[in-house]
Amino acid sequence: MELSRLRTEVLEANLELVRRGLVVYTWGNASGIDRETGLVAIKPSGVSYEKMTADDIVVCDLDGKIVEGCLKPSSDLDTHLELYREFPTIGGVVHTHSKFATAWAQAGRSIPAFGTTHADYFYGPVPVTEELTPEEIGGDYVLNTGKAIVRRFRDLDPAAVPAVLVAGHAPFCWGKSPAEAAYHAVVLETVASMAFYTTLLSPDAPGVSQALLDRHYLRKHGAHATYGQK
Amino acid sequence: MELSRLRTEVLEANLELVRRGLVVYTWGNASGIDRETGLVAIKPSGVSYEKMTADDIVVCDLDGKIVEGCLKPSSDLDTHLELYREFPTIGGVVHTHSKFATAWAQAGRSIPAFGTTHADYFYGPVPVTEELTPEEIGGDYVLNTGKAIVRRFRDLDPAAVPAVLVAGHAPFCWGKSPAEAAYHAVVLETVASMAFYTTLLSPDAPGVSQALLDRHYLRKHGAHATYGQK
Amino acid sequence: MELSRLRTEVLEANLELVRRGLVVYTWGNASGIDRETGLVAIKPSGVSYEKMTADDIVVCDLDGKIVEGCLKPSSDLDTHLELYREFPTIGGVVHTHSKFATAWAQAGRSIPAFGTTHADYFYGPVPVTEELTPEEIGGDYVLNTGKAIVRRFRDLDPAAVPAVLVAGHAPFCWGKSPAEAAYHAVVLETVASMAFYTTLLSPDAPGVSQALLDRHYLRKHGAHATYGQK
Amino acid sequence: MELSRLRTEVLEANLELVRRGLVVYTWGNASGIDRETGLVAIKPSGVSYEKMTADDIVVCDLDGKIVEGCLKPSSDLDTHLELYREFPTIGGVVHTHSKFATAWAQAGRSIPAFGTTHADYFYGPVPVTEELTPEEIGGDYVLNTGKAIVRRFRDLDPAAVPAVLVAGHAPFCWGKSPAEAAYHAVVLETVASMAFYTTLLSPDAPGVSQALLDRHYLRKHGAHATYGQK
Repeated sequence: MELSRLRTEVLEANLELVRRGLVVYTWGNASGIDRETGLVAIKPSGVSYEKMTADDIVVCDLDGKIVEGCLKPSSDLDTHLELYREFPTIGGVVHTHSKFATAWAQAGRSIPAFGTTHADYFYGPVPVTEELTPEEIGGDYVLNTGKAIVRRFRDLDPAAVPAVLVAGHAPFCWGKSPAEAAYHAVVLETVASMAFYTTLLSPDAPGVSQALLDRHYLRKHGAHATYGQK
Repeated sequence: MELSRLRTEVLEANLELVRRGLVVYTWGNASGIDRETGLVAIKPSGVSYEKMTADDIVVCDLDGKIVEGCLKPSSDLDTHLELYREFPTIGGVVHTHSKFATAWAQAGRSIPAFGTTHADYFYGPVPVTEELTPEEIGGDYVLNTGKAIVRRFRDLDPAAVPAVLVAGHAPFCWGKSPAEAAYHAVVLETVASMAFYTTLLSPDAPGVSQALLDRHYLRKHGAHATYGQK
Repeated sequence: MELSRLRTEVLEANLELVRRGLVVYTWGNASGIDRETGLVAIKPSGVSYEKMTADDIVVCDLDGKIVEGCLKPSSDLDTHLELYREFPTIGGVVHTHSKFATAWAQAGRSIPAFGTTHADYFYGPVPVTEELTPEEIGGDYVLNTGKAIVRRFRDLDPAAVPAVLVAGHAPFCWGKSPAEAAYHAVVLETVASMAFYTTLLSPDAPGVSQALLDRHYLRKHGAHATYGQK
Repeated sequence: MELSRLRTEVLEANLELVRRGLVVYTWGNASGIDRETGLVAIKPSGVSYEKMTADDIVVCDLDGKIVEGCLKPSSDLDTHLELYREFPTIGGVVHTHSKFATAWAQAGRSIPAFGTTHADYFYGPVPVTEELTPEEIGGDYVLNTGKAIVRRFRDLDPAAVPAVLVAGHAPFCWGKSPAEAAYHAVVLETVASMAFYTTLLSPDAPGVSQALLDRHYLRKHGAHATYGQK
């Protein structure tokens, strides 16, 4: 893939977050990776979305060495890189502080699979990480955030559950491309709001059955998907 | 009715769902039926609303055999067809994942008739179906969703309560036309949000009296309606 | 006042309700009175706001006899008329089903004066009426709604508390003009939402002190008002 | 700084509050100070935002004596002045009745530091003042509101926690400039909504650890800040 195309895709994913109301000011970032070259393109740090162009997108390698761009990359870069290194099937990462997903993260609670809206995209609860220790926070904090996510997914497939809540912080989402990662961020916020209302209506709501979870997830994913114009 | 007109009405009902904020991405579908010919027009599966035209609307008979259109119909088609077969007075069906109505469905709770806003359109609570069994989910799931709705309405008049919550899933609404079905979807979401707030303010709110329910429903419906320019 | 000006003011108040997001479809109505002639102008019943013009506004006398206009008046007309007859200082009435105010009405709870936002406009709680009896509902229901409001204000000054919640129904607001009635409807919905959040955060919140209530209400009202460019 | 520039900055901060949805009608005000001359520019009282121009902004000295402008200043002027006198590092003040922040103020509860969104801007909870006494309310109420804020910050650094909730009233925010004060008002409302949802999901949520609070706050502030293009 040409770098200019990757940068454009990453710019577009960042702007999609704004259009969908997921970010306030500069509180979000999207990145994408070209798996052939291992190059990652990411939003610059603290630049307003109104003025951002594809040329502002920073390109670096998987170790964080800047390859192209004269701006500083997002301060969350090291979390993105850890996810790209450890989740080899993903092509895009998005971080936001969208309100309802962040509330679940702040409450330290996973988002249960309460219905088919959730099951269509997340094969099980959206998990919350453990809190980082003072040592992890005091050390390489941004990288350690990525490591906490990876640790949480030790027994989970990141392709089947393309989102996580970082305890006391906010969500990270991913997908096969920057666009899909942004799409999942929108889905997550929607699902998080519905789950909030559901929990208040029925604190002991059991969530969907395994049968329904299977049915909905597999309807949109995998070899036997029946949804869309395929 | 000409098929082109039915397709246009169905397109318009689908777009109304977007304008009213009831659907995210492609999570909704509206259909309509021409009772003379028994032909049903429905949204295609997974096509974005921005690009949809009347020509994209798929037409099939009541058994689901495609009569016109080169796209796949909505994956929820079999639920729509079951409703048209079993509720002979309806002319349009709408399915959304609107947030508050979906939360009630996920909580497995009917929406009580808490006030006149509700009573103006729904003559009693908006019921929730039973959960589908693993066998129903593993079998002809979409059809079985329709059957669960019909079963729930065994002792209810679908013309008097033009909406249902599918447990763990989301609402289906209907009406005399695609436009009225979409209208009822908007009403349902509004009523669902008000009922959510009401329940939190007063967990034991009794709901409207039978006298008030009668008064409001019959004010807008039936031979003695007094509302509007009739 | 010329009738054409009153009709224009009433049209404008109705449109303001739409612009402020207080009404869905046709669920709201505003009226105004010319106290010199005793003529009342009110929104027609069930006409969409998009198409409404000043000529559609219906004019009648205080007994409800149509004086001008070829459309049917709002089905809530008799409630408006009762308020004009019994509250001689008011010049405009607005009825909406705005979400949070309606939720309080459905919960059968008055809105407490939790803060200065409330106290700036309502000198004490916004009261809720008693539920109408089956006889009142089965009889002249719309008029009896007005009578229930008037009864609730037996010991209250409608100029000091320009809004009420009709139990199981929705709010009515009023003011010196149609524009002020609409303004109060917006304030009420805002205050109702804040009071909802406040109650959930602190179920036993005491509300403002009498001293603060006095200070804020009298800051904007009465002979010693200090707010604005007077 | 030229006065015309200060007035323009203050106008712009006021308009930003409207664009961000923080104010209804005229319920908000922003001001700025030129520390060299000690002159304060503030929104006029009760003037609609649609018509406001830089010429309408009122300029006064730190004792409230009008220096320029023919309109009355905001009725909250004396609170602003007290903050400028007592918090010498601030350059702008904003007051709104934004919904969620006001709900916390009405509930008499500080907003806990539940997550990094909060910690990025507020180094600890956003405190709530004590209620004013009847004597303070009956006396120089607006000034006394400022004094209650200053008293609440006796052991707090206003640069580290640039916002406060006035009990039973609403928030005040500040910053190095009018623009930053408005920015903090937007952040506060966002954080207040997230904290509301968090509290409902987890009434005993512990909030961020001291380590995380330090990390996030110091990441954006102070000599070792790493955020943005510095």
